[in-house]
Amino acid sequence: MASTKSQIKKDTGPLAPTIFVIFGITGDLAGSKLLPALLGLYVKKELPDRFAIVGVSRRHFSREELREYLRDRMNIKHGQFFEEDIKHFLDHLSYEEGKFDSPNLYQSLAVHLKSIDDMWGQCSNKLFHLSIPPALYEGILLELSASKLTLPCSDGTGWTRVLIEKPFGNNTDTARNLDKLLGKLFKESQIFRIDHYLAKEALQNILAFRFSNSLFEPLWNREHIERIHIKLLEKETASERGAFYDATGALRDVGQNHLLMMLAIIAMDKPADTSQSDAMRRERARVLSKLIAIPKRSLVENLIRGQYEGFRRESGVDANSLIETYFRITTKINNRRWKGVPFYLEAGKAMAEDRVEIDVYFKGDTNGKIDRRNKILGTSRQNILTFRIQPDEGIKIRFFVKKPGPGMNTESKILKFHYADSPSLASLPEAYERLIHDAIVGDQTLFASTDEIMASWKFITPILENWSKLPLVIYAKGATEV
Amino acid sequence: MASTKSQIKKDTGPLAPTIFVIFGITGDLAGSKLLPALLGLYVKKELPDRFAIVGVSRRHFSREELREYLRDRMNIKHGQFFEEDIKHFLDHLSYEEGKFDSPNLYQSLAVHLKSIDDMWGQCSNKLFHLSIPPALYEGILLELSASKLTLPCSDGTGWTRVLIEKPFGNNTDTARNLDKLLGKLFKESQIFRIDHYLAKEALQNILAFRFSNSLFEPLWNREHIERIHIKLLEKETASERGAFYDATGALRDVGQNHLLMMLAIIAMDKPADTSQSDAMRRERARVLSKLIAIPKRSLVENLIRGQYEGFRRESGVDANSLIETYFRITTKINNRRWKGVPFYLEAGKAMAEDRVEIDVYFKGDTNGKIDRRNKILGTSRQNILTFRIQPDEGIKIRFFVKKPGPGMNTESKILKFHYADSPSLASLPEAYERLIHDAIVGDQTLFASTDEIMASWKFITPILENWSKLPLVIYAKGATEV
Repeated sequence: MASTKSQIKKDTGPLAPTIFVIFGITGDLAGSKLLPALLGLYVKKELPDRFAIVGVSRRHFSREELREYLRDRMNIKHGQFFEEDIKHFLDHLSYEEGKFDSPNLYQSLAVHLKSIDDMWGQCSNKLFHLSIPPALYEGILLELSASKLTLPCSDGTGWTRVLIEKPFGNNTDTARNLDKLLGKLFKESQIFRIDHYLAKEALQNILAFRFSNSLFEPLWNREHIERIHIKLLEKETASERGAFYDATGALRDVGQNHLLMMLAIIAMDKPADTSQSDAMRRERARVLSKLIAIPKRSLVENLIRGQYEGFRRESGVDANSLIETYFRITTKINNRRWKGVPFYLEAGKAMAEDRVEIDVYFKGDTNGKIDRRNKILGTSRQNILTFRIQPDEGIKIRFFVKKPGPGMNTESKILKFHYADSPSLASLPEAYERLIHDAIVGDQTLFASTDEIMASWKFITPILENWSKLPLVIYAKGATEV
Repeated sequence: MASTKSQIKKDTGPLAPTIFVIFGITGDLAGSKLLPALLGLYVKKELPDRFAIVGVSRRHFSREELREYLRDRMNIKHGQFFEEDIKHFLDHLSYEEGKFDSPNLYQSLAVHLKSIDDMWGQCSNKLFHLSIPPALYEGILLELSASKLTLPCSDGTGWTRVLIEKPFGNNTDTARNLDKLLGKLFKESQIFRIDHYLAKEALQNILAFRFSNSLFEPLWNREHIERIHIKLLEKETASERGAFYDATGALRDVGQNHLLMMLAIIAMDKPADTSQSDAMRRERARVLSKLIAIPKRSLVENLIRGQYEGFRRESGVDANSLIETYFRITTKINNRRWKGVPFYLEAGKAMAEDRVEIDVYFKGDTNGKIDRRNKILGTSRQNILTFRIQPDEGIKIRFFVKKPGPGMNTESKILKFHYADSPSLASLPEAYERLIHDAIVGDQTLFASTDEIMASWKFITPILENWSKLPLVIYAKGATEV
């Protein structure tokens, strides 16, 4: 994109001039994820030639102070980037101070954005990122709308898009309300609901793996798969995020979004055209909508809720908190492919190790039963395909070979593949780089559709409503199981 | 087995006293394979407590000279065994000198064996190993029979068994004649036809892999497999075995036996009971009997015969030899599982590398056709499962993962498992140890049945008869393809 020419002829392609407006620029997410991702894209020359970042926050900073502050928050590793690149990148950053609920802020912001457009001689694209607590979404969205910042320029150029972070509501009703509000201000094609798990390379790779290897897809059904176990275990305690966590709980924090997205990706049907964003989102939503609600008469058999010992003593946590830091759900999917196959969804804080993975258990010689913790009682000779999401992203297969010597006894071995062993795959791009890139080019594949969000809440909300009927299991920090 | 007691009560179990009679004790096979295998079993205490080896040969040796001579031929690696074990092992060896076609030899041999039985106070088992050129089989078998050495002792104890090396005949007729002769002297349960490939751990493991991993067996058919390529490539030239090779050719040397056995193992149906020797042999024979004969009208399309440049100058080789040192056969199997799936059988001397392996190509996106050398013309995205038999025994799967970054492009990667990486599997027992062990305990699973032999000759003989109608392709030593 030659700059001289583009000052005469307007840029309107996918990398046309773009302003990123970040509400909550001084927050955790902006500092630790958004800005590093933008810097990463900038260095790789994957941002538009003309881009600006406008940070919005209540706090008082001079432009210089803000740059200093953010430079620190970005936590850039020594040697990761050239100092000059960081400096040039931060030159694109400007600041708008104000209260999110004050109409004045949006008027100043409109002037601010207009001045950038004037400098570029063209109406730019605007990407609004709500990097703030969900309670503030509605107010900001309404003010954005009132100030007409959600509209394209008067000549019809310059798209506007909004990036929304999870949690998207906290039950079916609040999610529906937020959706309605968004629907009034934006078309679905302008709304980018982030679940950063969707953009993880290791998750995307599950789709590539399923749909590019004819070896596995014929086996991907109830006839050959016995059960699937999706887990997101963290060593970390709630610690500094105690107040947030006590208000949210594990099920809302990672269950409704990350775990169900993993389930959608492992279980969805293959769309006729995997390159079509709509088709991909439709199939994810379709499989989520087929999740069987946990029957009220069998809550105890299908649900475990736990809280780690000491959670109530974390700062910001109620001394009598009944919030869950661990859950385990056993569910099934009501379609031809999966009828009868149990899916286990498990997540917890303060566990023995960090481990996010999906285990696909194939049918085989199972000598003995499986208990409700997915443990095999007795011996088994089962193939297991494991997708490790983190750490050590990779794929492994447990299979059986002959023990050397007379007879036909077998022992289990592992066929494995680690991204880290593969030079071209060793540096996986950060999920947020991918998400920002896709939002700029308008590809919604890795963003949750309204149908997906509503299907996931439809499954999760009844569990939340029945949570209090279940015993709260107190587990020791560093537990391997609950 | 306590020795004092056993002198009173006779041993009759699988490890009852046994004499190994080796015809051709001074030959290559006895020195390089049989005796090392017997020594290996001896050290592992897998031979009967009371065992003797009686070597038979035309050459003149004192017992001491023979021991010296064999000690050298056995080519024992320094440190592989304790000197004391080797010495004690060789103490079990005695010698019978004579001409194979002289009745006197068999009379002396009978006296020799009787004297050992007398010493042990019990009629022992006798295992006759014909470690000699096939031309001598008939004479020896007839003399053994005439001298009644093929019969148990007069009290009905002491089994007799015969181990026959390949080649078992050199076409359908000679194989049938040999079979008839054996059938007159022995029951099928006494006849152990050796194809040492059958006893290779890596081949046995294919069965374990196929039948113990529910992941793969559902894919093991024409619906999911596109073609199978079985190859046995050797760097070695005919060199010192020129005369033998010029009389035999690659198809008889390794095609009728090793390659077809590999095919049987990769393609056979699973018997109801894999622990039943008869059932295993029956399924191998059944799939071999379904091989489709190469049609006379399409010899050139389905057969390649080659000879490496310089073969005719090898010592012992006719200067105008038309014998093949390389062949490649394309065939199919006429049953439900495999109908329409091409099987490629390829073997050659003087090739670029040593490589014995089976490649199973799964159906997938094949952009382009496959030429008759099994090369894909165009690009492909096919899963390939490879069983490497030697060197570096192992299993690998070519599969596809996502290329990092935007889009859903894939690249091929390898999931692999090497025996050598696995401590418990690192020292694979020699095929001959397994074969001798199984012959002692009477397990015929790893030996070719008469049905298998006849089915394989039925497929190979017409090819041999039509060989001369095909061009003989001369290839350079070190070729990667012909």
